[in-house]
Parts: sequence; structure tokens; C-alpha cells
Amino acid sequence: MNTITPVDTVSFDGREVSLLDQTLLPGQQVRLIIEDAAQMHEAIGMLRVRGAPAIGVAAAFGLWLGVRGLSDDLPRPEAEAKVEETRTYLAGARPTAVNLSWALDRCAAQALATGSSTAQLKQALLDAAIQLRTDEEATTRLIGEHGADLLTGLSGVLTHCNAGSAATVGLGTALAPIYVASERGQALRVFADETRPLLQGARITAWELREAGVPVTVITDSMAAVVMRQGLVGAVIVGCDRVAANGDVANKIGTYGVALLARAHGLPFYVAGPTSTIDLGTPDGDHIEIEQRGAHEVTHHGGVLMAPDGVDVFNPAFDVTPAEYVTAIITEKGIIYPPYGPGLQAVKA
Amino acid sequence: MNTITPVDTVSFDGREVSLLDQTLLPGQQVRLIIEDAAQMHEAIGMLRVRGAPAIGVAAAFGLWLGVRGLSDDLPRPEAEAKVEETRTYLAGARPTAVNLSWALDRCAAQALATGSSTAQLKQALLDAAIQLRTDEEATTRLIGEHGADLLTGLSGVLTHCNAGSAATVGLGTALAPIYVASERGQALRVFADETRPLLQGARITAWELREAGVPVTVITDSMAAVVMRQGLVGAVIVGCDRVAANGDVANKIGTYGVALLARAHGLPFYVAGPTSTIDLGTPDGDHIEIEQRGAHEVTHHGGVLMAPDGVDVFNPAFDVTPAEYVTAIITEKGIIYPPYGPGLQAVKA
Repeated sequence: MNTITPVDTVSFDGREVSLLDQTLLPGQQVRLIIEDAAQMHEAIGMLRVRGAPAIGVAAAFGLWLGVRGLSDDLPRPEAEAKVEETRTYLAGARPTAVNLSWALDRCAAQALATGSSTAQLKQALLDAAIQLRTDEEATTRLIGEHGADLLTGLSGVLTHCNAGSAATVGLGTALAPIYVASERGQALRVFADETRPLLQGARITAWELREAGVPVTVITDSMAAVVMRQGLVGAVIVGCDRVAANGDVANKIGTYGVALLARAHGLPFYVAGPTSTIDLGTPDGDHIEIEQRGAHEVTHHGGVLMAPDGVDVFNPAFDVTPAEYVTAIITEKGIIYPPYGPGLQAVKA
Repeated sequence: MNTITPVDTVSFDGREVSLLDQTLLPGQQVRLIIEDAAQMHEAIGMLRVRGAPAIGVAAAFGLWLGVRGLSDDLPRPEAEAKVEETRTYLAGARPTAVNLSWALDRCAAQALATGSSTAQLKQALLDAAIQLRTDEEATTRLIGEHGADLLTGLSGVLTHCNAGSAATVGLGTALAPIYVASERGQALRVFADETRPLLQGARITAWELREAGVPVTVITDSMAAVVMRQGLVGAVIVGCDRVAANGDVANKIGTYGVALLARAHGLPFYVAGPTSTIDLGTPDGDHIEIEQRGAHEVTHHGGVLMAPDGVDVFNPAFDVTPAEYVTAIITEKGIIYPPYGPGLQAVKA
């Protein structure tokens, strides 16, 4: 069995937190040392680290970085206030993914409950971030194992954006089942939507699949329907940035359209993500805030203006796929089928 | 009434044939003098002139350019052989649009039936190209008049690629009804799919609509579904490169997906084109040759490599939308509704 080596998105080497600058992929593989919370906020906001699970882990380390420099002599309440401030600050780096605030809340809660000194608080935040990273890595393996069973017998799958190893720590979410299927010896070609405007599919999904030896074909987003009609794929699998309590799924812009196309061609549409992405506090997709990003991402290609200067642009970073178009949701705790309400509650219990 | 001034795509000033190099839009507006058939073949193949009606007119002038330099003393049979050779050569510049061979056949037939000298043949080819250009311009106005009636009461429409003035001589095909509606005083915003890989929507549709004062919003192709779901458009209107006898429509890659999305949202999906685009000799979409283009168009953005070097790419330039997804076909002879067989035969009779 050929074992996949995950992309090292965010890690701690015992001294420094570093991350792979994904804005430079696939041309350059540059690792950035992140020194403080402001740098982590910038890295998340600028998508140097992206993908809901990865930004959760990045934010967890960012929370530690926010207090790392505090004197051990600082009174604990002042250090705790700094934790709160940093948590709020980092949670605002991107609004749509729930993992960001989930990871920050988890780590803060663990640390605030540990010890009574500022030194203990600092150490506890680092321990919590490291533990989160370990847990998230294990989670992706489980998603892969569960999801691979759904892909048995298929020779092609289509994915949108990057919900791969580069979006997590570990094997990814949407790509984890593909990697596990590949480890099991299944020949599976991935059709990767390039995913405009930021091209995470062409730049990142295609790159990491090639690095892992999984056959991949890059297509423009507009070609997905033809790939389906020609029978080149037997399923669609995507990641998610937030799953509402009713099973509505927020994910990269274009996902909703792909789900409709899958339905039109009778193909299953699978969503993969850790249970931390499920937000029972959000009743449905209408309650998910959708990040709007700048016109520049749409009008410029490779840094070159490819539209009339100053033209009106609509650039939502995410969309919502209603639960009715989702065939199943793959989590580390197993596969959830419609109706989603009870199943999502069960895995969050 | 505000009258639209069409883009001057291909024209003859009494001495020279020239065309607007659309590969440089919207950054630069460069007019190329085309000296011979080889230059016209290159201009069509490289998409300097594009859009089925415009390449028909371009090819017609190219046919004349192919014989312009022949001595008037050349025996007529030799000149006629040169016409045949040039016609075949130019017809191969792009395979999918039927207007290209239709325009060449029309002009060649007219010229071959005119006079008995080589000088007369040359003059007749020029006359035929000029007449074709005049007729095609009138055709777009009629498409606009018919199609505008379908848009009454709408505040937004979505289009894909460029089937505008820049794709024709005149007001365009898909955009002609929008221009006529605008001339009639209707406030109509156009959502323009950017249309990867070559961005004819962002580069050309957005440019020509802005030049004409029609409100336009550029979106990535992946956003069309969200624009529909949010109720921002009341119809989709696109052009066509070939309409088969059963109403199947070949058009820019991505059109088929947009048609499926329109259906999923209960929106009408209109196809606009001159009757010269209808090919009764092609029974259905399965018989339309789809041009495959190079990987470079997909992997490079603004000249910059944005995917792993050498990655597999699928790059069909067109797709086929089955007739069942087409609400109506708008031609210069009127609007055709399903079932398309009889209606298409009637307008071609």
C-alpha cells in the first residue's frame, strides 16, 4: 500500500510556528515563520493558509502567539484579557468558516481552565494548539476511511476548490477519501475545477494530487457539466466551510452550481468535513454570513487586468448548497444521510 | 431614443480589409490591416476576430484577399481553382461554427456565377463580401427587435461569452435584444459570465456594454447559479455557433451548464443567432465537431502559469446544449419555439 504524505500546512517545530504560503503555489513552495497574532491574522485573511480545518489550527497557534510574549509575572487576569482580545481579533480574520471560532473557543476554554499563573496559561494554549493539530490530522484519516467506501468502483470523481491535504492538517476532507481509495489501490482520476477567482483547484488541488501520484485533470469551472455528461465522473465530492443544522452547506463559490449539475446528471454529491464544521447554532443556510471579497480577484488574471477598469463585479467567496442537493455528509464519525437534522445532532452530541 | 453604435469588427474602407484585434481587448484597441488569406486564416484561428457571424464576414473578405493579387490576364479556370483552394483553406481555420463555411460557400457561389474573366471574378468576390457584411448587419438588428420583446419587464439578464456586437457586424446576436431594449428605454443590467478560459465575457462583453452605456456586472462562471438563485436575472440569453436540425445548440464551453442552471431556477434560456447558424445538414448535437484547444489557455492566467507545469487539461472550446433546455431560438426571421424541427426548417426554406 502506497501511503500518502500530507502537505505540511501549519506546524510547530518546538520553537516556531510556520506555514506554507499557499498564495504562491504551485510555482513556489515558501514556508513562512509566523511570529505573532497579527501575522497570523494577515496570513488567514490573505489566504496564505486556507481551508476551514487548516485555518482552525492556524488560529489556534495564533492565539498562543498572541500571548507568547507576555511576561510570566503578568497577573493572570491581564493575560486572560489578552487571550479574549486575541480570540476576538483572530475570529474576525474570515467570517464564513465556523472552524475558526470553534478552534479558538476550544483552545481558549482548555487554557483558561488550566493552572492559575500566566506561565501556565501560555503553556496550556500551546498544548491545546498542538493537541488540536494532532486531533485534526486523525480526523482527516477517518473521513478518508469512511468516504472511500462511497467511491468504490468509480474511475473518476469531480471536485471543486481545494478541500485537500492543503486545506487541513492531514489528508484533507474531500480529497481524503480519494487518497484512501488510492492507498487501497483504486485507480481514480480526479477532475479538478480550477475554481475561479483564486484558482485553488488549478493551483493547489492539482498540485497536491500530482505530488501524491493521483491522476488529475484540470478543467475550467464551466466544463464541469460536460465532464458529467460525458460520463467521466461517477460522483462529486467537495469540502465545506460550515454545515447548518438542517444540512445546508456553505462552501467555496461555485459549489451550489456543481451540486445542481450533479443532480441534473443523476450523480451523487458528497460533502466531506470534520464535525467541527457542523454548526448547530446556525439553523439553515440563510443564516450563514457570506464573505464578499474585492473586485480585483475577478478582474485580474496573473496580475493582469482582463476586464474594463472599474467595471462592476460581484464576488461572493462562498455559496450555500441547500441540503436537498446533498447526497451524504462524510465526517470522522461516519456518513450522515438525509434527513440531516437528526444525524447532525447525533454526531455533535 | 439612444442609438447603439456597433463595434467595427471587420470592414473594408475601399482599399483595405481591417479588423479589431480582440485578443488585446479591453486594454488596447488595435486595428489590423489584413493583407492576404494567410493573415485572415491566422486572425480567425487565433481569435483576433471571433464570434460565428463575424468570422463568416472575415472569411468572405479573406476569400477575396486570396485572389486579389492574381493577374487579370490569368485564365479564368486557374483563378477559379484558386478560389476553391482558398475556400477550403479558410474553412479549416476553425471547425465548429457553420457560418464560416456558409459565408465562404455563399460568396464563392455568387462570384463563380458572375462574368467570365478573372477580373470579373475578383470584383464579384469583393462585392459578395461587402454584400454579406451589409446583410449580416441588418440581420443583427432584426434579431434585436424580435428578441427585445422577450425581455420586456426584466431588470436583469445573464449572458455567457460574447455574442455581442464584437461577435458580429452589427448589434450582435445575444446582446442585440439587450441593445434594442436599451434603445427602447428599458433599464436592464447584464450579468456577464467572465467565460473561461479566454475571458470573452470579462474582456469583450463587459467592454462593449460599457462602451454602449448598458449596466454590466462581471461574474466568474461559477457565480451564475447564485445570481439566478438570488433573483438578479429573469432570463439567460446566449449566442450560438451551430444549431442542429433538431434544435441542439453548439456554443461556447459552459453554455450547457448555464442552460441546466437556468432550468433548475425556472428561468427561460434563449439562444440568439442568424439563420445562417442553423445547419439542417447536422441532424443533432452528437454530429457537431467540437474544437479542442491547447492546455495553455487553461493553465495560464495573464501569461502566468497557475497550475502544475504539464498537468493534464481538458479544453473543449464548445459544448452542446440539448434542444430540451432551449426555451426559444431568436433569429432575424422571428422567434422559433419547440418542437424545433419544423420551425428551423421553415426559416431555412
